[in-house]
Amino acid sequence: MLTGAEYIASLDDGRATYFEGRHVPDLMQEQAFAVPARAIAAGYDRHYSASPDATNPLVVAPRSVEELRHRADVVHTMDLALAVTYGSLMTLLTAAPRMSGVDPIYRERLAAYVDDATRRDIRIAECITDAKGNRTLPPSQQDDPDAYVRVVERRRDGVVIRGAKLHISAASLVHDLMVMPTKAMKPGEEDYAITCAVPVNTPGVRIINTTFHPRTDDVRHFPVSSQRSMPDGFVVFDDVFVPEERVFLDGETANATVFAHALGLWERLGGVTAMVTQADQLVGLAQLIAEANGLARVPHVRDKIDEMLIHATLVRAGLEAALANAHCTPEGYFYPDELYTNVAKYQGAAQFHLMVRHLHDIAGGAVLTSPTLGDLENPETGKYVEKYMRTGADGTAEDRMRLFHAIRDLTADALGGWHLVTNLQSGGGLFAQRIVARKHYDMERAKDLGRAAAGLPT
Amino acid sequence: MLTGAEYIASLDDGRATYFEGRHVPDLMQEQAFAVPARAIAAGYDRHYSASPDATNPLVVAPRSVEELRHRADVVHTMDLALAVTYGSLMTLLTAAPRMSGVDPIYRERLAAYVDDATRRDIRIAECITDAKGNRTLPPSQQDDPDAYVRVVERRRDGVVIRGAKLHISAASLVHDLMVMPTKAMKPGEEDYAITCAVPVNTPGVRIINTTFHPRTDDVRHFPVSSQRSMPDGFVVFDDVFVPEERVFLDGETANATVFAHALGLWERLGGVTAMVTQADQLVGLAQLIAEANGLARVPHVRDKIDEMLIHATLVRAGLEAALANAHCTPEGYFYPDELYTNVAKYQGAAQFHLMVRHLHDIAGGAVLTSPTLGDLENPETGKYVEKYMRTGADGTAEDRMRLFHAIRDLTADALGGWHLVTNLQSGGGLFAQRIVARKHYDMERAKDLGRAAAGLPT
Amino acid sequence: MLTGAEYIASLDDGRATYFEGRHVPDLMQEQAFAVPARAIAAGYDRHYSASPDATNPLVVAPRSVEELRHRADVVHTMDLALAVTYGSLMTLLTAAPRMSGVDPIYRERLAAYVDDATRRDIRIAECITDAKGNRTLPPSQQDDPDAYVRVVERRRDGVVIRGAKLHISAASLVHDLMVMPTKAMKPGEEDYAITCAVPVNTPGVRIINTTFHPRTDDVRHFPVSSQRSMPDGFVVFDDVFVPEERVFLDGETANATVFAHALGLWERLGGVTAMVTQADQLVGLAQLIAEANGLARVPHVRDKIDEMLIHATLVRAGLEAALANAHCTPEGYFYPDELYTNVAKYQGAAQFHLMVRHLHDIAGGAVLTSPTLGDLENPETGKYVEKYMRTGADGTAEDRMRLFHAIRDLTADALGGWHLVTNLQSGGGLFAQRIVARKHYDMERAKDLGRAAAGLPT
Amino acid sequence: MLTGAEYIASLDDGRATYFEGRHVPDLMQEQAFAVPARAIAAGYDRHYSASPDATNPLVVAPRSVEELRHRADVVHTMDLALAVTYGSLMTLLTAAPRMSGVDPIYRERLAAYVDDATRRDIRIAECITDAKGNRTLPPSQQDDPDAYVRVVERRRDGVVIRGAKLHISAASLVHDLMVMPTKAMKPGEEDYAITCAVPVNTPGVRIINTTFHPRTDDVRHFPVSSQRSMPDGFVVFDDVFVPEERVFLDGETANATVFAHALGLWERLGGVTAMVTQADQLVGLAQLIAEANGLARVPHVRDKIDEMLIHATLVRAGLEAALANAHCTPEGYFYPDELYTNVAKYQGAAQFHLMVRHLHDIAGGAVLTSPTLGDLENPETGKYVEKYMRTGADGTAEDRMRLFHAIRDLTADALGGWHLVTNLQSGGGLFAQRIVARKHYDMERAKDLGRAAAGLPT
Repeated sequence: MLTGAEYIASLDDGRATYFEGRHVPDLMQEQAFAVPARAIAAGYDRHYSASPDATNPLVVAPRSVEELRHRADVVHTMDLALAVTYGSLMTLLTAAPRMSGVDPIYRERLAAYVDDATRRDIRIAECITDAKGNRTLPPSQQDDPDAYVRVVERRRDGVVIRGAKLHISAASLVHDLMVMPTKAMKPGEEDYAITCAVPVNTPGVRIINTTFHPRTDDVRHFPVSSQRSMPDGFVVFDDVFVPEERVFLDGETANATVFAHALGLWERLGGVTAMVTQADQLVGLAQLIAEANGLARVPHVRDKIDEMLIHATLVRAGLEAALANAHCTPEGYFYPDELYTNVAKYQGAAQFHLMVRHLHDIAGGAVLTSPTLGDLENPETGKYVEKYMRTGADGTAEDRMRLFHAIRDLTADALGGWHLVTNLQSGGGLFAQRIVARKHYDMERAKDLGRAAAGLPT
Repeated sequence: MLTGAEYIASLDDGRATYFEGRHVPDLMQEQAFAVPARAIAAGYDRHYSASPDATNPLVVAPRSVEELRHRADVVHTMDLALAVTYGSLMTLLTAAPRMSGVDPIYRERLAAYVDDATRRDIRIAECITDAKGNRTLPPSQQDDPDAYVRVVERRRDGVVIRGAKLHISAASLVHDLMVMPTKAMKPGEEDYAITCAVPVNTPGVRIINTTFHPRTDDVRHFPVSSQRSMPDGFVVFDDVFVPEERVFLDGETANATVFAHALGLWERLGGVTAMVTQADQLVGLAQLIAEANGLARVPHVRDKIDEMLIHATLVRAGLEAALANAHCTPEGYFYPDELYTNVAKYQGAAQFHLMVRHLHDIAGGAVLTSPTLGDLENPETGKYVEKYMRTGADGTAEDRMRLFHAIRDLTADALGGWHLVTNLQSGGGLFAQRIVARKHYDMERAKDLGRAAAGLPT
Repeated sequence: MLTGAEYIASLDDGRATYFEGRHVPDLMQEQAFAVPARAIAAGYDRHYSASPDATNPLVVAPRSVEELRHRADVVHTMDLALAVTYGSLMTLLTAAPRMSGVDPIYRERLAAYVDDATRRDIRIAECITDAKGNRTLPPSQQDDPDAYVRVVERRRDGVVIRGAKLHISAASLVHDLMVMPTKAMKPGEEDYAITCAVPVNTPGVRIINTTFHPRTDDVRHFPVSSQRSMPDGFVVFDDVFVPEERVFLDGETANATVFAHALGLWERLGGVTAMVTQADQLVGLAQLIAEANGLARVPHVRDKIDEMLIHATLVRAGLEAALANAHCTPEGYFYPDELYTNVAKYQGAAQFHLMVRHLHDIAGGAVLTSPTLGDLENPETGKYVEKYMRTGADGTAEDRMRLFHAIRDLTADALGGWHLVTNLQSGGGLFAQRIVARKHYDMERAKDLGRAAAGLPT
Repeated sequence: MLTGAEYIASLDDGRATYFEGRHVPDLMQEQAFAVPARAIAAGYDRHYSASPDATNPLVVAPRSVEELRHRADVVHTMDLALAVTYGSLMTLLTAAPRMSGVDPIYRERLAAYVDDATRRDIRIAECITDAKGNRTLPPSQQDDPDAYVRVVERRRDGVVIRGAKLHISAASLVHDLMVMPTKAMKPGEEDYAITCAVPVNTPGVRIINTTFHPRTDDVRHFPVSSQRSMPDGFVVFDDVFVPEERVFLDGETANATVFAHALGLWERLGGVTAMVTQADQLVGLAQLIAEANGLARVPHVRDKIDEMLIHATLVRAGLEAALANAHCTPEGYFYPDELYTNVAKYQGAAQFHLMVRHLHDIAGGAVLTSPTLGDLENPETGKYVEKYMRTGADGTAEDRMRLFHAIRDLTADALGGWHLVTNLQSGGGLFAQRIVARKHYDMERAKDLGRAAAGLPT
């Protein structure tokens, strides 16, 4: 296993990373990368064992409902890179037995890769969404054939790929990029049916980053984003060589969706567990700021908090149902029920904006206009900030200001915007989640209930 | 146990039942009572055993999560009177151990009553909602002290009660009325803290009924309400004597809510299981009518059906979570988690109107204007009905008409209105369910999540 | 002009009307027809003038915004047959100048027909929705070519039509049926491009009715539906001859939608004015029952009423905007703005179910279970009904019962179901209204605002 | 009148302004102040006239519906300081005739102040929301009597005030602060019934600012917030002297709400006009990005855009209705109808979050992860950005990136958060708008409609 320091050192491997028009030669010199890198390093240290055979116990496939539930409980305590690595490895384990009619070598390579990645204790990002070009056309009919990542050359010992993968969280801070097709491929689109693992520092890989990391000197009024930011990568593969032992699918179009569906499941499970915690967190902030404002007993405030906690519990119910109705692969790995997982993800995403509205409605304009801790410390303004941000309710002026800062940071600033978009888009937009829900819903049973009501034969 | 015929015979016991201004001396002579009575009788026959010690296996308290789940699965196959009886008995079993600081005789009477009722195989209705008078005043301050049911006289061998209980489904068709306080009582309101079981034919009991049973001669275009109607009773207790062995609480105000809370739990569980099935039924009807209309592949129709099936699954997830997180009384009886049960009930009730809108939007105006089967059989009109109600899609004109009839009956006629109101009001309106959800939600945990985000000590 | 008695007499003209499998030889012998016929007769008497040149001033095209507004104000005071007649005539006047590239004889016939109908003071129903058969196929490709009304024979002096029109309110109680194409027609579908006026008693016309008229003997607990019901007709044209002077379009496919669009506009305007009044009525009922229940000051009740009155006012704002931005035909007839009319109709329909939910949530279960006035009058039950339906708040037990009856009748029984469906479906379902809104919205202006924000040239 | 340069010079008047813990001695040295100051200066130059008697024609009270509509049309083209100044002056003109039972000197001072302010061409900010302390207590019962701004000393020639006003847009960039009570005051709270105009640079005034102005060097991917930011002020009055001619209310508690109600009206009108334009802008961005993504014809995308344009039109209908039903002060100044204004504001605020969700759902993850223009210009990354951000649909990669930047800036970053909160909170939260709507709604008419339906006397 790696220590945090070893992880930090591992990033200095020549990876080509860019940010706002600049090359970033040393990630640790730039707050937007150094802060999340240190968070990942802390994750390494937390699970480190010096034993030579040790592996991270969190990155092991669950073999019972209880283990699956345990993962769901702890995943939100992991740093994002570890969480994504867990999802990537589970994706591979879930996908392997679903591949059919392919050379058994792929399963052997997958097993070897999972084993090796676990032992080397690396971090892995999932690379799925392509650039896509003209979305009404399939990959093979695009003006630019590289709109979807594809194999441009097959060599004796591996393949060369070209294209781009978008919206890749943590891409600049992991070791491996797990590339897989974003959608079903048809005969004739063999070059696009490619799944493989690419080290970030492979020649030809370039990552253009965006981030919600705060840009002020004093980041204390960004209490969450200053601690838990993570850059998103626009990952370019410009004729990148991948050795054959890292290729898990190449050309078998009928199996193109196997990885995406498996990933979708784990990503939506991750999304749901994150949203469940997030929903409870918003409830807590709403209650705390209502109390700090002295308004916790006002009926319309209580009503809004009630709606928030009902929402939070309903999404959690979806997670509970997905776990209680978990399924098992032939190898004995447990994964959550897809219908419940999707439905919970859909509800969480669809209602999130309304929950934010409730929180803003309860909290008031000081979400935006609360002075900073710097203003509280400035002798020319501090006594006024103290005097007028107090309410006489429990808690100090500073406590109340910190709550406003947290609410703004989480819901009404750069990180807030990131949540609004990613809650919707992770695992596909609302429409994608409808499609999956429809696919797994037992419509024949529902139709029989309808026929029975109508007096028609079932 | 009773046979269906014995049940029918048992109704001829002098009960005082009224309907639309008339006394109903013989329930079996009036369709609105005879039809549901025969449905209840069929339920008796289904479970009948001639063995002298036999009892109905469905009316036994669950002793494991699996048994609890089994009850949830079968409760919607029971006739309403049996389902209500099950809820009543579970209420008593759940309430008994929650009573505190009272004479142990109550628990003994409860146990004896449950045992006796089970052996005699009777049906029991729950009587909770009082007339309430001026709702801003407590029972003891009403102009009319009878606005809430109360004890007006205590005799050596029992009590005399007066008041009215409203919205009592099946009151005219059961054997016993289970009377209990509808809310918390304070010291000084001892007379209102009364729980007892009253046979329907006790002198002084009068029941004024309403019903959604269809009033046409040809009821075939009311395929559900003509088969599964159930009268609701406005039950008056005009100085009714209750012998002491049927009195389960009398004056212990601190325990007044024990029965209502237990009932609320089982009523909401019953409501949730009914709503889960109902939601799937509406999905099925939407899909069937979309297919019959030839519109099942139209995107906006699919979108609406998707929203309906997501809703149905989300409410079901609430039920699943309530069962998976079931709790156990000291006696070993399992009951569902209250938070999840309430939240599922809330969501099901709050969104039901929207689901009805989706169904109506998909089905079209023929929900209202489809001719009847009589019009199809009339030689002067039948060939036109056949010709113009066909669509060329799968299914005959008659099939399609039957679907329209079922949709109208279930969602756009008297039974539909009954569903709109009772989905909201059973177990209390939306506000009541918010209160219960708030009470059971772990707010401290949520506040800790909020504090952690704000950098405040947890 | 006709008196009410003359109108009643005019119905005895041999029209072929059917109801629940029976022929109805004398409409006045059947409550479901006699009651609305008498309401229409009362409308005749209200506007009657013995002057030989008199015409109904309400059935004259508005020539200013003020006149248009006046019509919007009074249309909901008209009986439905008069309102529909007004809409039909306005449709013809709006459509006439929009016809292009057609024989001018059509406009002359339209003008003559409007003039004659006005002078003869007849009532006219709009017949638009066809049976439609397989909805994914156009009229010309149906298995049954009669799935849309079509011309089956052209004679020297007129045409013969065949087909059916569905959902025709008041069809059995008017004099003329205004037939028009329900959608755009293409070259090759000339036979389906037919607009004409057909007297109801023409041989070959048959009408199969449905109704929400109550079926009890004592209809007092159906206070609205027992007074204001109106049958809907399923109108069959079995080779019906239409003389040429009553044919307003025959074969000019490019003009097929002119009438439907004009009708849609007036129907949606009628729908909006009805919904505005209906929304205010529901607010009023919510407030009255909250007061009668003694709950008008409870915060969550006030919140719901507030949401209802905001909804009512918002829909009214749409109507106000449609009137304030009215347009004018070349002939000087004013008609409301289509975008605002549609948007108001959409909002009114989309939110109606939620408003019903609020009303039911406020009112409580007695919407369903309130005893009838007959129970109040029955000496065996009346004193109890009086005692327990009073609340001590303003108003008698009877007042409160009447409010419950009105709420059930309007929102939770047969008429309520009719409102749920027709609010959505009149003028097309929600999707149809989206299409119209999209068509009239100034998207280029919106895009320019978007481009300006993005720094792109506008 | 002032030129832009004169305005810029006027800011150097010793005002005490603070930002993130620092004093800001020269506003023009700090982008977050200099950018909006230059925008205000541009507004001066746009309307400048050298004529000595000239005044800004936009800051004149409307004397007809047409003039009122014109103001509504142009207000969103004004810079925020000019818009707020217009609202402030209209507030004073609307409030003056509503004051009753007070010394006529107030009206004279108001008229003189409006005249002087107009001639001097100054900018004025509205200072209404107090610190409020314990919100469940009135001003006079707070621990800290300064929780609401109050008069602490009355001198022969004026008053001395103390307290703080929160959420004051543009406070640091205007000339005068218009202080007024935020709520009704009772007898005994005379010191809190204070309305007056305070120059920003008066000794004792301190302003602590917050802003959504972007903090990057290259602000091109913040296309809106980098151009149109405006700091919000936390304004402290530490024993500030106000000469008597600038005092418009002092102690007349019965008139305390006159100014707040008038301000609320104009602020909500301003809010509605802003939201109407904003809603159309979001529609335009949704359509443009759908086209750029090649998805404009996908049904679920069109559905979402349809919902957005229906929303935009509905809010606009509220504005249209408010203008079409404008009222007139005794002096002949026109102001919009309060009921329609409030209802439009409510709808716009309540649905804004959902519209943002639709936009994010349509646009996709590149809202967050689109590279910057700097990345496009960087030779190491530019060709990849160009290659993979193109879609083959109309428009260049750069156009598409600019659209993503605008969407993120407006809805998913600091400015987006500002909109989420201020749309709700300006003019009070949703609850405040319900109260106003309820107050102006004609409930008696609605109740009469309800009574008529129930057969009760009206």
